Formats: sequence, structure tokens, C-alpha cells
Amino acid sequence: MFSEKVITSLNKSSWIRAMFEEGARLSQKYGEENVYDFSIGNPYAEPPLKVVETLKKYILSDEKGMHRYMSNAGFSDVREKIAKSLEKESGVALNANHVIMTVGAAGGLNVVFKSLLNPGEEVLTFAPYFVEYNTYVDNHGGKLVALPTDPATFEPDLAILEKGITPKTKAILINIPNNPTGVIYSEEKLKAMDQLIKRKESEYNTTIFILSDQPYAEIVYDHMKVPSLLAIFDNAIIVNSFSKSLGLAGERIGYIAASSRIKDVDLLCNALALCNRTLGFVNAPALFQKVVGDTLDAKVDIEGYKKRRDFLYEHLTKLGFECVKPQGAFYLFPKALIADDIEFVKRATKYNLLLVPGSGFGCPGYFRMSYCVKFGMIERSIAAFEKLVEEFK
Amino acid sequence: MFSEKVITSLNKSSWIRAMFEEGARLSQKYGEENVYDFSIGNPYAEPPLKVVETLKKYILSDEKGMHRYMSNAGFSDVREKIAKSLEKESGVALNANHVIMTVGAAGGLNVVFKSLLNPGEEVLTFAPYFVEYNTYVDNHGGKLVALPTDPATFEPDLAILEKGITPKTKAILINIPNNPTGVIYSEEKLKAMDQLIKRKESEYNTTIFILSDQPYAEIVYDHMKVPSLLAIFDNAIIVNSFSKSLGLAGERIGYIAASSRIKDVDLLCNALALCNRTLGFVNAPALFQKVVGDTLDAKVDIEGYKKRRDFLYEHLTKLGFECVKPQGAFYLFPKALIADDIEFVKRATKYNLLLVPGSGFGCPGYFRMSYCVKFGMIERSIAAFEKLVEEFK
Repeated sequence: MFSEKVITSLNKSSWIRAMFEEGARLSQKYGEENVYDFSIGNPYAEPPLKVVETLKKYILSDEKGMHRYMSNAGFSDVREKIAKSLEKESGVALNANHVIMTVGAAGGLNVVFKSLLNPGEEVLTFAPYFVEYNTYVDNHGGKLVALPTDPATFEPDLAILEKGITPKTKAILINIPNNPTGVIYSEEKLKAMDQLIKRKESEYNTTIFILSDQPYAEIVYDHMKVPSLLAIFDNAIIVNSFSKSLGLAGERIGYIAASSRIKDVDLLCNALALCNRTLGFVNAPALFQKVVGDTLDAKVDIEGYKKRRDFLYEHLTKLGFECVKPQGAFYLFPKALIADDIEFVKRATKYNLLLVPGSGFGCPGYFRMSYCVKFGMIERSIAAFEKLVEEFK
Repeated sequence: MFSEKVITSLNKSSWIRAMFEEGARLSQKYGEENVYDFSIGNPYAEPPLKVVETLKKYILSDEKGMHRYMSNAGFSDVREKIAKSLEKESGVALNANHVIMTVGAAGGLNVVFKSLLNPGEEVLTFAPYFVEYNTYVDNHGGKLVALPTDPATFEPDLAILEKGITPKTKAILINIPNNPTGVIYSEEKLKAMDQLIKRKESEYNTTIFILSDQPYAEIVYDHMKVPSLLAIFDNAIIVNSFSKSLGLAGERIGYIAASSRIKDVDLLCNALALCNRTLGFVNAPALFQKVVGDTLDAKVDIEGYKKRRDFLYEHLTKLGFECVKPQGAFYLFPKALIADDIEFVKRATKYNLLLVPGSGFGCPGYFRMSYCVKFGMIERSIAAFEKLVEEFK
């Protein structure tokens, strides 16, 4: 009666819903403070003061026409500000025409895939990866191919990448800092990747776009910096959101920026704006376009996230968990204590621990924890982890 | 290098862009007040005072967590309020589970089509119709079939509908008040349609959904009322937005409501929430969900629209234009003075009149005017229409 494909997806994801329901059941039974829910990446952080003040300024200004439609690409003054900020960071000349405001990064990725993909074309990415990428690519007739990474670092393996690139490869999707590992690929690795891609492009006479999904780019620790993919790759398309950097996840505000070095970039940007409309986004929410345009230099409190990372990483590794130390984002991706990560996560619920199996990220044998939660809950969870470890000894 | 399909669409729509560019050129040359731009449905009306005050209340409250993710279906308190408002209007029992908050009606329609359509299934609609319906249905593997209407009333012709329904018909998309005609189908017509559909459903052993795209439902004149499709059709799905009723077009806020009479409605609503996520909308913008939930009884100034409709209808018919008098929305859809509506619209630009050809709505020989513009412009345009009519005498 409904879409068979969608109903199949619903059934497949029913175990995730079952887990959330189990979480809700546990919370009701034991009290919310006694359930350790590390399952969802819903940032606890409030927007920075500057964002709150800017929002007030716009709302109190009673400016006429503030909530009307604008061009499908968004307000040009906001796009110009974002372009100049990226230009400064990357050294690549950009202006408003290269930027399209979007309904978050999820909206932006769908707009990019719709604009780029012909039937059967492939998008490569590196496991573990955000599982929705499969659906986003499939929505527009493409095929996602996830390549394994080096388990010691979760960095791409260029020999595997070389074999993975085919004449059908339309794009390579890079997510740094990575969800779920928190890893930032090194500039050297990315530069070597650029050389490899250029070689394959000339071998196959194709163009391969580098898509950077970078909603966590501002959430980095230890003075790390995310390398500028615009600076490294000619055919770079940046997809970003303010969900994490400004604590605005529910407001759905982000952007796409296409490098001015892309051949026919104007045609591409027209296609992006058209797809923003035809996919039903129409335009990014008006008020928050204005707000983010005025607060590009603002950032949520990173120290709070760092404190959580340090505490959890220290305690979990002390308990014997193997884990690559995250350099950004707000996730840990430790190795499960048995090979079957789904079974492991199920057994963790006995101690009121809600985790997500690595299988959900194309990387079985691991589990993800979101530490964008209250610090007190993290502290209290350690005793539960101790019991969990005890069970597997 | 990019999606061939998208580039083809871009080229096809290039004459529209050319017209807009011509409009901008004319504005620059003659001054904005001397160009009569009736081309875009971007409501001039500001949000009602209650909406503005509610927005201020939320922003000044400094409530924590206001901008975070919520469930993909939206805030349950807001959904419950919408459900109860629709229940009161239709007599059909509804609760929060039947309502999914969306990124406007455009987002809502895409979510509905994704959730319903299997490859090759058909969606019927009535011409003239909002041309984006083609893309929305095509995005999800379906096929839009537009049926002609009675040119004297622009109401559906049930004999044509009967022939149009096939075993592949998954849904019938109804838009009242209609864009571009402003026509509201009568309750009698809709009830007869229901009988016909029931007969065809049992003939083919299928389920046919009635999709009501009703962003103009609150913009009606002369004490007209839009019949409740929830009350008339068992398999009704309402798609609505606050773009026009509350003047919030740029903020992208709307909803889907599925009738509790639909078999397996819970499964359908789970599918809708899933598709809201997987299509990249994730959730409707958080702040404006809260705002519309508190202002469901508010409405933009309808008298202003009525004044425009009356003035334009009176003057254009006096000048000899044939036109069905709109009962709602903010469009006029008169007959062009020659059969070739695209040529007609091109020649109108000579008098600085920007109109949209009926061909863009699957109905050649007519043109659309959006009268959601400043009244002074409408007044000044009459002299230009006089000259245009003179040219075709």
C-alpha cells in the first residue's frame, strides 16, 4: 500500500527504534539519571551568546519582509560573507555565487547528489561512516561504496582507494572530523589522495568531485586544525551546517560552497539552486540565514566537549577498551569486547548503558558513544562500564 | 559532468530565468515603480501581530534546548494542537501521531511521495496545476498525470477522471484554492469524486490516496469555505504550510496530517517521519514549529488580498479579458488574447508587464498573475494593460 522500499528500510531500522524504546523503558523504570544514554548526537550545548543576541536583534528590529521567500540560493549578503570567510581560510577566490544556503548539511548533501549523479554513478566514502549517506546517495539514483580504513588510525588506505576508483566514480565523500571516530585526516594523506585522484581522472578521462561533509569542523581539540579541502582539491564541494558549531541543530541551517576552480562552476551552482527548490527545500530558513551570517566567528563552548572526551577516553582505556583518541567531533568509537557488536550493545543495556553498534556505521566489532551529554551522566556511567567489562572477563 | 537530467531541467527553465532577468533589466531601466511584476507568488503580507509577538516571547524566554533536534516528526505538543484543530474542523479523530511537521508544503509533498510511491505508480492531478508537482513526483520514481478541467469553471471533469484512474493510480493530488486559478472545488463535486474513487478502488482492488495540497486554505473570499477533504475522503492526507496563512514563506514551516481512517496509518506515519529524515529535511525548523503551534488561529490580512482581487478582476474583465473569478489564493488566471500564451507574455513585457504563461501550469492559452503585490503597482498597471489590449485589437 505504501512504498515497499521505505517499508523495508523501516523494518531494517526497527532494532534501532527497539533500542530507543528500551532506553525510554529503562528511564521510566530506573529514573532518567540512572540510564546512561550515549546513543544520540543531539548536542547539549546552547548557542553562543552572540547567536542568542543576534537572534534577539533581528526579532526586535521588526524589519519588514524578513520572513518572505528569497532566491532559492539564499540571501546574497549572507552567501557573500560565507564565501569571504572560506576564501580567507583556503586562499581560493570565492564569492556569493559559489555559496548556496541549505536546510542543514543533510539537505545540502541531498542537493549535491541530485545535482551531480547520473543513474548508477558511484560515491566513495571511508568506513566507519554516517549511515544515512547510503540513503542520501540512493535517493538520487547513485550507489555508495564504503571503503575500509586502517583500523589503527581510521585513516583512508590509498591502495584500497586506488582499487575502489572506477570510471563510474563521481565523487569521494570525506567527513572530517569523522562521525563516529572523531579522526581528522592529515594534510599529507589528503595531498597524496589528491595526486592519486588526478592520476585516476586522467586515466579514465573523468571528473571526480571531493565532497567535504564537515559539520564538526569547528569542534576540534588540542589545537588541531581541519585541513582545507578547498585548498587541496580542485574539484572540492564543501557541505557544512551550523548544527554543531552554533548549537542550532533543530533549526536546519547550513550551506554548500563549490570551488571556483571547478570547470563550469556557474552551471553547477545554478543546478544546486534549482535542486534546492525541486527537492522541496525551496530555501534555507530565512531568519537563521541572517543570524548565522552575522555570527560566523562564533562557536559553542569547545572546552566542555574536550573535558568529556578526556574523561571518557581516560576511563574507558583504563578499563581496557581499545580506542583511537578522537581529535574532534563528540564521539568515541571503541572496540567492542566481543566480535558481535550488536550482541555487545544489547548486553550493555543490562547496565543501563545505551550505545550504538559499529555495524550501523559500516564497521562491525566497534560501538559508538556520543558524549554530547551531561557531564554528571558520564561520571556516573563509569561504574556501569566497570560491571560491563567484568561480565566479559 | 553533472546530472544530465538536472541540466536538461535547467535548460528547459531557462526562458523563465530569462524573463526574470528581463524584469530586472526593465526595473533598472525604468525604475522599479514603473515595472509591473505579477510573476512571483511571494506574499507581501507581514506575519500577523500574534505571530510576531509569539516569536518575541520565545526568543526573549531564553528557554534552554529550544534549538536542539527533536523527533523527526516534530514537537509532539505542536503536533497535538494541529491534530485537534483538524479534528474539530473535520470531525475525524486525530492525535499527535497523525501529524508530521515538515519543511513547508513543498517538503511535505516530497515526504508523502517518497513514502507512498513504488516505481512507475501514477499521481493524478487537475490542470492547470503548480508545475513543480512534476518534479516532486518524478523525484520519487512516480509519474504525474495531469487531467484537463472544465474551462468554464476549472473544476475536475469526473468523466475524464474516471478514464484517468488506472491500476497504477496511487494518489490524486488536489489543490484548493487552486494555484493558478483560485478556484475552490464544491463539496458536491468532491463527494461525487469520492464515490467514483471508491468504485474504481474496488474495481482494481487498489487504495487511492487523496492528497490535499492546501497552502491557500486560509486565503478565501466572500465567506467561502474550503471543504474538508478529511471529512469527505477516507484515505485523505493533508499537506499544508504556514507560508501564506501566516506570512512565513521563507521560514519553511508546514505539516502533513494523515487521516486516522487510513488502514495501517501508524505504519504510514512512521514511514513519513523516516522519509523526513532520509530526504535530508531531518525535522521542520524548531523555533517556528513552536511559533505556529501557538498561533493556529491567526491569519494574515485577507481584506488586503480581497481588495486586490476585486480591483484587478473588475478592471481586467472590463478591458475584455475572460477570467474565472478566483474564490481564494492570490492569483488570477485570465485567457491570453492570442492562443500562444508564451508569445503573449513576451509581448506584454513591452509594456513592462511581467506575467507567467499558462503553459507553465499545463494549461496553454492562459496567463497567471500573482496579485500579492503592492496595491499602487496594481493601480498603475491598468494603463499598461490598456495598451496591451489595444495592440491585440
